[in-house]
Amino acid sequence: MKELPVHIQLNPDDRKHLYEQIYGYIREEIRSGNLLAGEKLPSSRYLAESLQVSRTTVDMAYGQLVSEGYLEARPQRGYFVCALEGLYDIPTAAALPHPEHRFGEKKIASGGPVQNDGKFRYDFSPNAVDMSLFPYATWKKITKNILVDARSSMFSLGEPQGDRELRVTICRYLHASRGVNCEPEQIIIGAGNDYLLLLLEKILGRHIPIAMENPTYRRACQIFRSFAWPVTFVPMDEGGMRIDALRDSGARLAYVMPAHQFPTGIVMPIGRRMELLKWASEKEERYLIEDDYDSEFRYGSRPIPSLKESDQNDKVVYIGTFSKAIAPAIRISYMVLPFKLLKAYRQKCGFYSSTVSRIDQTILNVFIQDGYFERYLNKMRKYYKGKHDLMLRELKPFGKDFKVSGENAGLHMLLTDRRGRKESELQQLAQEAGVRVYPLGDFYMETPPQGQHKAAVILGYGALQPEEITEGLRKLAEIYCP
Amino acid sequence: MKELPVHIQLNPDDRKHLYEQIYGYIREEIRSGNLLAGEKLPSSRYLAESLQVSRTTVDMAYGQLVSEGYLEARPQRGYFVCALEGLYDIPTAAALPHPEHRFGEKKIASGGPVQNDGKFRYDFSPNAVDMSLFPYATWKKITKNILVDARSSMFSLGEPQGDRELRVTICRYLHASRGVNCEPEQIIIGAGNDYLLLLLEKILGRHIPIAMENPTYRRACQIFRSFAWPVTFVPMDEGGMRIDALRDSGARLAYVMPAHQFPTGIVMPIGRRMELLKWASEKEERYLIEDDYDSEFRYGSRPIPSLKESDQNDKVVYIGTFSKAIAPAIRISYMVLPFKLLKAYRQKCGFYSSTVSRIDQTILNVFIQDGYFERYLNKMRKYYKGKHDLMLRELKPFGKDFKVSGENAGLHMLLTDRRGRKESELQQLAQEAGVRVYPLGDFYMETPPQGQHKAAVILGYGALQPEEITEGLRKLAEIYCP
Repeated sequence: MKELPVHIQLNPDDRKHLYEQIYGYIREEIRSGNLLAGEKLPSSRYLAESLQVSRTTVDMAYGQLVSEGYLEARPQRGYFVCALEGLYDIPTAAALPHPEHRFGEKKIASGGPVQNDGKFRYDFSPNAVDMSLFPYATWKKITKNILVDARSSMFSLGEPQGDRELRVTICRYLHASRGVNCEPEQIIIGAGNDYLLLLLEKILGRHIPIAMENPTYRRACQIFRSFAWPVTFVPMDEGGMRIDALRDSGARLAYVMPAHQFPTGIVMPIGRRMELLKWASEKEERYLIEDDYDSEFRYGSRPIPSLKESDQNDKVVYIGTFSKAIAPAIRISYMVLPFKLLKAYRQKCGFYSSTVSRIDQTILNVFIQDGYFERYLNKMRKYYKGKHDLMLRELKPFGKDFKVSGENAGLHMLLTDRRGRKESELQQLAQEAGVRVYPLGDFYMETPPQGQHKAAVILGYGALQPEEITEGLRKLAEIYCP
Repeated sequence: MKELPVHIQLNPDDRKHLYEQIYGYIREEIRSGNLLAGEKLPSSRYLAESLQVSRTTVDMAYGQLVSEGYLEARPQRGYFVCALEGLYDIPTAAALPHPEHRFGEKKIASGGPVQNDGKFRYDFSPNAVDMSLFPYATWKKITKNILVDARSSMFSLGEPQGDRELRVTICRYLHASRGVNCEPEQIIIGAGNDYLLLLLEKILGRHIPIAMENPTYRRACQIFRSFAWPVTFVPMDEGGMRIDALRDSGARLAYVMPAHQFPTGIVMPIGRRMELLKWASEKEERYLIEDDYDSEFRYGSRPIPSLKESDQNDKVVYIGTFSKAIAPAIRISYMVLPFKLLKAYRQKCGFYSSTVSRIDQTILNVFIQDGYFERYLNKMRKYYKGKHDLMLRELKPFGKDFKVSGENAGLHMLLTDRRGRKESELQQLAQEAGVRVYPLGDFYMETPPQGQHKAAVILGYGALQPEEITEGLRKLAEIYCP
């Protein structure tokens, strides 16, 4: 066993948590090649003793490394370093920010108003957003203050890319919360993701073959098709999009959700991320589109990093939105363009007027800068964590008949049937109990090969009240696991 | 002489002004074919006497009919009916709304912030907007009230086409102010004209040959080129886009500004409009895009009608914006789609999320419905009329050396040189006097044939204060007409 632990210099005065120092140290050892694939790490008990920290602290660090794909946990045997593609060319990442400086986002991938036609007492929609904790009063106060000060400059047309002040704020936010290093020049603010994708079409052109995961986010697919981009659906394994199939697809672009794939909830491990980045760097015209839609709602230790954080070759177009982190009505999204694409942006669509009002940009900027956003997200994270834990408790009785997955992040989980029932049957049964569930099959954009798609239903819990979760899942258990 | 006057039944109790009743009667006589091309109308003095109205009233009616192209005024001879293409198939228009029910818009065609680098004491920019009379307090009050009432529904994502309530309001407004008859279903609300044009690209497809006037609105041209729409520039005569050249162009679309062409200020006469509509109706795939950008700032009697008002064959895509009528920061524009294009919209891009926040839509809806918009526009119209009249007074000394034109509407005028000076020379002279003028040549998208382009400068006065207009034009007169 490698004498790893003795090198870790823990600093209790560091602003980083101890678990994060351990996590960061081991991660760097792996990324730099000091720890090689297949090597076994000390047991968490041993490491805890030698570092004089609690075992929980070490477990948190190991857990994070496992969920990011640096380590693999083999039952009864311990933790092993995973094989990582192309790690040699990744320099040391910037120091991790303090968790308190991290923001989260509450978002749900697919948009559109959720319809409940009254047939369902409990709607486990993966699209719904809970606005009950939204600081309406704060938002109103900021709006009022801004309008009091506002004169004509606030009512004038701003820069096409968005107001610089807000872009600077977003840069800081992305650096602190998602490890993204970018310049305000790379950021384009627009009224929603769909609009930003429209700009991306102008930048990249038409007829660009794009690969998507299968199942995936349906509206993104519709949008790409409206660009005349031929879409190929690449099958996934437990690490997400399969790289061999991506290579076979002939695609030039790949659209991925590495932090929490919609709808499967898969967190893409670091090894797969490296392979993906390597694929993109092999040809000049290849790019990755990272839709980082609900990355902050991770219920373990620290958030899953973004793919953009590891993007050393300027290959990732990063897209995020405040529409769902704050409120769907706030039509503000942002896109971080690789430097290589900035010139094309300026030539081909840099003259398009901004789609976001300066008033709204200013309100958002104040909301973030004055710390309201962070506070709101922390509150939401706790609130959702409560619902999340309740979900897991209430899903225990399902354990014999279903596999529960996708629970590491986001606002929905998957129940995969073990008894050979069809999704239509599961949906029908739920409906009879007054419960609306969402068949996974609806998110497959093309039929997967025989046996690859196991019957599963999606349970979104973002907008449900705790008592609704309890009652809904109990009704479901009665009919699913009689 | 036709015994026209005796048929006019003036009704002093009618909500329409007397001049408008006369105008409406004669217009219908021409449109229905009772008055034929070339026929002479009674003199205004004769008609005034026989109708027992003031001569000013008749002059206003005749003036309106001349500016819309129904009548032609021949000096020393009187008023004659113009030849109108295709009028036979135009049914009687809906009753004209009462002037008080008409709204106006203060807009300026090209957007983008106006830069003044300090070199110029007087900037006659055609892009600047005067916000000094904007009812900030009202806007703030509405915003505050809406946020007080607002709960989560206001913060949720609305319909892709825009909130129905606002679409109904826009329908009413368009009917009352622009004679447009449309259904809320035909309206798409979006964050700015550029975005709506992006949707139009999705609806119509790529590589659609489009004709534009020359000179024209530069950004629209850039946008069409970003769609891979081949743009042909069609020369204009005093009636606007020449139909023979349009026919030769092979275009399937024509982008026009019939109410007040930018930058020439030409009002397209009714005859040309009919020819244009006839051209569009000849082939299924032909459409007209009407950018009705500053139609309300007409300084004669009633506003110039929209092309859409005469669109009997469902061929006009009508685009308007509140971004400039209210404030550039308000990113709300609207597009009226022909019924024929609605299906394609729903199939091809009906799933794109709305780009306008529901909060902003609601504020605007209240602003219009509660009459604030109308009051603001009335105020602005008076205010601009004052500046407009001042411009004309101060431009009198230029009369020997320049032709003044484009003064019938909008917020800019043209000075066309009679002394053979070049635009660069005019610009240089103005700059020496600390005055910024805008050469017409900058708006030509391709060089017109020798002799077609006469040296002219554009003088926008929207954002200048009266004393700046006076001082700026006096300085200009000193150097232009020494």
